[in-house]
Amino acid sequence: MSNGFTIWLTGHSGAGKSTLAHALEKELTSRHISTEVLDGDIVRTNLSQGLTFSPEDRNINVQRIGFVASLLSKHGVGVIVSAISPYRTARESVRKSIPGFVEVYVNCPVEECERRDVKGLYKKARNGEIPSFTGINDPYEPPLNPEVEVRTDLESLQESTRKIICFLEQQNLIGEIK
Amino acid sequence: MSNGFTIWLTGHSGAGKSTLAHALEKELTSRHISTEVLDGDIVRTNLSQGLTFSPEDRNINVQRIGFVASLLSKHGVGVIVSAISPYRTARESVRKSIPGFVEVYVNCPVEECERRDVKGLYKKARNGEIPSFTGINDPYEPPLNPEVEVRTDLESLQESTRKIICFLEQQNLIGEIK
Repeated sequence: MSNGFTIWLTGHSGAGKSTLAHALEKELTSRHISTEVLDGDIVRTNLSQGLTFSPEDRNINVQRIGFVASLLSKHGVGVIVSAISPYRTARESVRKSIPGFVEVYVNCPVEECERRDVKGLYKKARNGEIPSFTGINDPYEPPLNPEVEVRTDLESLQESTRKIICFLEQQNLIGEIK
Repeated sequence: MSNGFTIWLTGHSGAGKSTLAHALEKELTSRHISTEVLDGDIVRTNLSQGLTFSPEDRNINVQRIGFVASLLSKHGVGVIVSAISPYRTARESVRKSIPGFVEVYVNCPVEECERRDVKGLYKKARNGEIPSFTGINDPYEPPLNPEVEVRTDLESLQESTRKIICFLEQQNLIGEIK
């Protein structure tokens, strides 16, 4: 059984996690690495129907994504998780169960995320239509010591992708391209 | 990406699903096939805390196991699911989403399962301590057309295992050993 890994993208809604996930997927697939993107929203519909956005339920959702990521990583898959996963303790808990865990802080100031507001969610949150929205009326706890930090407000998508791929190469989680 | 498969063991509590799952795991592993057992009870604690044993919740649990099995199968893993999964529609629904789906009816008359009562659950169900227990006060819908049927009350563990392995070989889901 070959070793897989999990790139765990954490950050605010609108920080660019999904975009980055798909750029990474493209890059890894081109290197013939079996890759799976676990998107927080999609996983929610498949594994966590009925869960709310309370701190407890958010953590349960993160743990379920972690359970699936650990199974896939164990079987050699390069997993890319894209999930706000706002609480530090929940992320630290999944870290322990996943071989080759790479926490990536997708850092973009919440003001910039709100300015972009790709899905119109910040507007809804400001209007009180979403009761527990991370960054508006629910906390986001940034990683203290992530394996990689990218700044999507300052870097290009290519630069951010490159940083993560370089880290995987340095750790021998993927082979280098000569 | 190589093709995986999912052996879905369905049958009453005490029919011998877990025993068969581990015999299959041993056999597949000896053939260098990346194998994962998804046990209904274990999955329940990781993915389905809070779900009851109502028909609706049982089906949600089956669908979650199916979601994980489909991801693993897609990435070449030989998945073995061991779960009562009592309802036909739920099993038919997961069948559609899983590549290389092999439904195995682990058939053992419920009277024999109750006689064995390995976990003491039938006694509890008879005492009214378990409100919805398959085969006692909750229905089990046997597969109408399973890929394989084993009779754990009539066959040895080795015979039942062999039947399933032969089917996988015939379908080219695994290689034959000459």
